[in-house]
Amino acid sequence: MTNVRLTITTSIDGFVAGPHQSLEDPLGVGGMALHAWALELAAWRSQHGLEGGEVNASTDVVAKSVASTGATVMGRKMFGGPPGPWPDDPWSGWWGDDPPFHHAVFVVTHHPRAPLVCQGGTTFTFVTEGVTAAVELARAAAGERDVNVAGGASIGNQCLAADLLDELHLTVSPVFLGDGERLLADLGVGSPQLAHRETVAAPRAVHYRFDRAR
Amino acid sequence: MTNVRLTITTSIDGFVAGPHQSLEDPLGVGGMALHAWALELAAWRSQHGLEGGEVNASTDVVAKSVASTGATVMGRKMFGGPPGPWPDDPWSGWWGDDPPFHHAVFVVTHHPRAPLVCQGGTTFTFVTEGVTAAVELARAAAGERDVNVAGGASIGNQCLAADLLDELHLTVSPVFLGDGERLLADLGVGSPQLAHRETVAAPRAVHYRFDRAR
Repeated sequence: MTNVRLTITTSIDGFVAGPHQSLEDPLGVGGMALHAWALELAAWRSQHGLEGGEVNASTDVVAKSVASTGATVMGRKMFGGPPGPWPDDPWSGWWGDDPPFHHAVFVVTHHPRAPLVCQGGTTFTFVTEGVTAAVELARAAAGERDVNVAGGASIGNQCLAADLLDELHLTVSPVFLGDGERLLADLGVGSPQLAHRETVAAPRAVHYRFDRAR
Repeated sequence: MTNVRLTITTSIDGFVAGPHQSLEDPLGVGGMALHAWALELAAWRSQHGLEGGEVNASTDVVAKSVASTGATVMGRKMFGGPPGPWPDDPWSGWWGDDPPFHHAVFVVTHHPRAPLVCQGGTTFTFVTEGVTAAVELARAAAGERDVNVAGGASIGNQCLAADLLDELHLTVSPVFLGDGERLLADLGVGSPQLAHRETVAAPRAVHYRFDRAR
């Protein structure tokens, strides 16, 4: 059965990116510190052509997530670039010629754009009908595997509000950003219908897993 | 040396109490769930005249905190009762005849009130000059031990904004409240000047310790 999961990292004060995001600073002021736990993993480094790195409690969390993902959903800002219509020679995002997904990625955007086929099996499809439509397309593309919603805050909060998630895999990095893009903002009492299942403490991160309360 | 410390529990979405706090529901809708990790500890239960309970990774965290505290600061709402001037026959708060502090407690309030001396060495002193004044009074009362700021969200956020804290002992309970009193709201980039020192994962809680970045 295909589950729909949000996998995302926040600061201890609840932000998935700092303020003042830009082409030069895609995660905003201080935002890179959120991902220190991942960037120092051997698994992450080898995936990005780097040597060395750690094997720790995060390794298994990441490996399970990667192995179970059949399709990804993300927001326009996470794909890359400033807001607004795509330029004539559209930039192909933060992800380079060989993006690390190796499956279908659905980008939620207000602005139509032809699909982008990359090396290694990654295709970006641009969805203008909203996050629910993107999740349904991803579900069809995922086969027996899961749909991973990768962020950012706006897409995550929309999925929570629309009750689209079977699982929330929330990593909390023990840093303060002080400002930026807040996840889990104004959920409202009784939302989401997700119950705590597991906590894994790792260096520079705690991984919390929630799933649909049954 | 006396350190000033905020010790507080939030939900995974950042609230220290739910909405609609009242005399009947002092922690607001859903708020009691934040403290499940503590209420099931043998240490907490014996302190409140109850038998049984667990010994787990939280036990040592709580024991160290209690042993090192010489004075406590809290907000009016945490002391108890609705806002506004104290009535003629003022209620003595949530804490009963023998409060669990056994030291000087300074309550930040807009409304003057004579000190309240309780059994077991607890005295409540009502401070109308603001949180900084309350922390200074507590520092003088704490002797060689530490000042513990116990909450709620308003007092905690005021201490963070005024840079009064040497340490933050933040416990995160893996439940969603969805609404209520938010801690760590709008700190601003670069605030607080606190660095992560330790994470202790326990049943129904993760304890994070931060202290002044040096």
